[in-house]
Amino acid sequence: MTAMDLNSDLGEGYGAWRMGDDAAMLAIVSSANIACGFHAGDPAGIYRTVKAAAANGAVVGAHVSYPDRVGFGRRDLDITTEDLTADVIYQIGALKSIAAAAGTTVRYVKPHGALYNRIAYDAGQGQAVIDGILAVDPSLILMGLANAPILDLARRAGLSVVAEAFADRAYTPKGELVSRREAGSVLHDETVIANRMVQLARGGTLQAIDGSTIQIEAQSICVHGDSPGAIAIAREIRRRFEAEGIAIRSFAEPA
Amino acid sequence: MTAMDLNSDLGEGYGAWRMGDDAAMLAIVSSANIACGFHAGDPAGIYRTVKAAAANGAVVGAHVSYPDRVGFGRRDLDITTEDLTADVIYQIGALKSIAAAAGTTVRYVKPHGALYNRIAYDAGQGQAVIDGILAVDPSLILMGLANAPILDLARRAGLSVVAEAFADRAYTPKGELVSRREAGSVLHDETVIANRMVQLARGGTLQAIDGSTIQIEAQSICVHGDSPGAIAIAREIRRRFEAEGIAIRSFAEPA
Amino acid sequence: MTAMDLNSDLGEGYGAWRMGDDAAMLAIVSSANIACGFHAGDPAGIYRTVKAAAANGAVVGAHVSYPDRVGFGRRDLDITTEDLTADVIYQIGALKSIAAAAGTTVRYVKPHGALYNRIAYDAGQGQAVIDGILAVDPSLILMGLANAPILDLARRAGLSVVAEAFADRAYTPKGELVSRREAGSVLHDETVIANRMVQLARGGTLQAIDGSTIQIEAQSICVHGDSPGAIAIAREIRRRFEAEGIAIRSFAEPA
Amino acid sequence: MTAMDLNSDLGEGYGAWRMGDDAAMLAIVSSANIACGFHAGDPAGIYRTVKAAAANGAVVGAHVSYPDRVGFGRRDLDITTEDLTADVIYQIGALKSIAAAAGTTVRYVKPHGALYNRIAYDAGQGQAVIDGILAVDPSLILMGLANAPILDLARRAGLSVVAEAFADRAYTPKGELVSRREAGSVLHDETVIANRMVQLARGGTLQAIDGSTIQIEAQSICVHGDSPGAIAIAREIRRRFEAEGIAIRSFAEPA
Repeated sequence: MTAMDLNSDLGEGYGAWRMGDDAAMLAIVSSANIACGFHAGDPAGIYRTVKAAAANGAVVGAHVSYPDRVGFGRRDLDITTEDLTADVIYQIGALKSIAAAAGTTVRYVKPHGALYNRIAYDAGQGQAVIDGILAVDPSLILMGLANAPILDLARRAGLSVVAEAFADRAYTPKGELVSRREAGSVLHDETVIANRMVQLARGGTLQAIDGSTIQIEAQSICVHGDSPGAIAIAREIRRRFEAEGIAIRSFAEPA
Repeated sequence: MTAMDLNSDLGEGYGAWRMGDDAAMLAIVSSANIACGFHAGDPAGIYRTVKAAAANGAVVGAHVSYPDRVGFGRRDLDITTEDLTADVIYQIGALKSIAAAAGTTVRYVKPHGALYNRIAYDAGQGQAVIDGILAVDPSLILMGLANAPILDLARRAGLSVVAEAFADRAYTPKGELVSRREAGSVLHDETVIANRMVQLARGGTLQAIDGSTIQIEAQSICVHGDSPGAIAIAREIRRRFEAEGIAIRSFAEPA
Repeated sequence: MTAMDLNSDLGEGYGAWRMGDDAAMLAIVSSANIACGFHAGDPAGIYRTVKAAAANGAVVGAHVSYPDRVGFGRRDLDITTEDLTADVIYQIGALKSIAAAAGTTVRYVKPHGALYNRIAYDAGQGQAVIDGILAVDPSLILMGLANAPILDLARRAGLSVVAEAFADRAYTPKGELVSRREAGSVLHDETVIANRMVQLARGGTLQAIDGSTIQIEAQSICVHGDSPGAIAIAREIRRRFEAEGIAIRSFAEPA
Repeated sequence: MTAMDLNSDLGEGYGAWRMGDDAAMLAIVSSANIACGFHAGDPAGIYRTVKAAAANGAVVGAHVSYPDRVGFGRRDLDITTEDLTADVIYQIGALKSIAAAAGTTVRYVKPHGALYNRIAYDAGQGQAVIDGILAVDPSLILMGLANAPILDLARRAGLSVVAEAFADRAYTPKGELVSRREAGSVLHDETVIANRMVQLARGGTLQAIDGSTIQIEAQSICVHGDSPGAIAIAREIRRRFEAEGIAIRSFAEPA
């Protein structure tokens, strides 16, 4: 039976500030990327989110970030590899203990925002992230951008990896994401998106922005919950997967 | 053979800022209270300190704090118990992973500054700290103020505890610390202090500020490294302990 | 003609996080308490809010706070008077320059949250806030809790003051706020609240929680915008004031 | 009579952390670049530093930075121009009020660290900084790297500028700083440095790293106080200037 993981960013409030509808997304996804306090997430909020993820059977991942709360981790930062490795270790550790307190475990690491984009292609910062993961727990899985060099870099270092596709993004003929600055880079039509994701889950292919068919080997699809429209897209993907007999299942077993 | 633990606060730099002479203190103490990022300590600095502690055979403890970097965790904060418990879990977890990366383990938890003083007598915040420790790892030892209610509160909750005395502080006839606002609350003479600590280690007693003899059941003595004078005091205590045949040994085994 | 100021807390987002509906509130209030970055507000967000306040003719005040973003300034902090005075100067100054850039000026200071509650009755921290205001600009007006000692303390120091009542809060027979921990402390019925505020504006009296009539000399009424219900209450007060011929007008002239 | 400004970075402690010897440097320099809280400096510490600068007759400048305390503002940040302009306005404003409280005024703006280096050549971020300064007070002077494009960019926008040379840095034949990653980029010999600075003050020239003579039109020389060696260099420059009859005088009049 065909299976696919759905993942989403959760726990992205901070103190009195809310972001996204975690409850809605936990009814949809199989894997929960939980903020670790560097771009979002205070300890009490992270704890509540991890408990909810565990209650919903979602697999928990550490959504590690540059230390940039005011910029929500979306700004490229010229950080040393020593600092980055230590930041990754710190964040994973914080989430591991919160997960233990919530009766679950951290199974994977997904870098967030600008760090995610940077390490997809930057071997220096990428290796620093890999070194941090290896130092904490080599059984943690790294989630990274499908078709990007980070995946091989991590595999060669001995990590298991999960390749990720983005439900609402257009792809170039080379299989890379179309930059958000270009027209047509973000998709909005639920049905179109759900159709694309069914094709991806079934056949490992997508139509690129020029209409050509490209290979995207992905074991997880990222869906968003930061607006009602985004949640509706995620729901439609789940509904279509269920209708088509595509199992929604994490790449890792829940705790 | 009589034995006593010496502990000190370490890893209290932050980014480009230094504090204390960690290398000097690691040649003196058997237990290292390592800042966890909330009052001091950035991940890379914490990592370096934990590696140095491990290399020196010091036992590592989590020096958890209120989230108050600009106030160095020295200001009383009216935090909810939910937030405090989560803050403790988060900080212990961050240090646990850094310790794992450094080849050692966190063995105990010592709250810092205003939190330490508050929970010595405040059962509400004290229980919140205890709950955080229990949620992460019930085998962690809580270090708390000798003669204060927190120790029994923690014991009743099932935690092992270590009672701590302060080398450079005067005590009331009731066995409590003389407030820093009162004259004579802080001792400065190395020889006097070393004599007192030998008496404490040997017989579990001290002269109170009024000259009376009081019982202080302590398994650890806190020494400071934040000034040349403080380091000299700590060195003299170690020298005297070695001369008197008092073993300097942590209450826990190093990793 | 009877006149009354309506004020509300604005600019309380932070980076990617939103809070409250500033646009809705700027259509209602005559005075805007703008977050200054210590409990909420990043510079770009503050700048946008101040420009919107200026465009709406609202008078701008500095909503200064303890430095406690994760606690949203709602937690009592045992800060030194030296630190508090400097924190107040810093925050007012930051807002003053943003106001200048936006073509308006800061006319008053309203401490936020736990600081507001603390200085209402605590002369030590209250004087520290007053000292900060005086050091920056003695023509700034201090907004404080009606009937509380802070108002006289500030007057004696030479500051102009504005006394503030809370639309949605119950009062004790002594004219103090009923603690939020007690039943009935927060009012929810729009009509009841609007009736009370008309009575307050007209006659300077309110029914206390025990039914007795109390004097509340207030020149400003605080309304909230952090939920649809709160905005509805604020709108109803404005509607009733307009219907009753009560001018909604700040205690200070806009820039 | 030949005159030259000496400037140094001051107020770079944070909370309990110290950095540099501000008192020593205030006996040497004519202009004080004061941290504004984004890379260093808490309000109370900034206030103390500004008072000391005023007492020493030093002219006060705002040492504005990226918001990156843990990185001390030394890491390049891909910030939007909207955020950067607002950050600059906020920081200048905070310092202006502290200066007013201390009886002095902010006369210039010197971006710090990574922001300084970036805007020297990056017109996008450079214009954002210029826009922030213009929005607050067009009479503020921008201090920037001698020979770099930022100076003309600022002049064309209507700002007065001051070109700055670095006492302890080697220059390329083109008049740019030799990268710190290259051998010989940082000079250490007090006498050599003082000789170079006399030549610079007298004739506006320096020997580049290849021995060629280059023009450096600078009105200010940056000296450091973050180590005993750095202070000794600064003292020697001052001593030589006094011996040679070169007036040490700011480009602006003190308040």
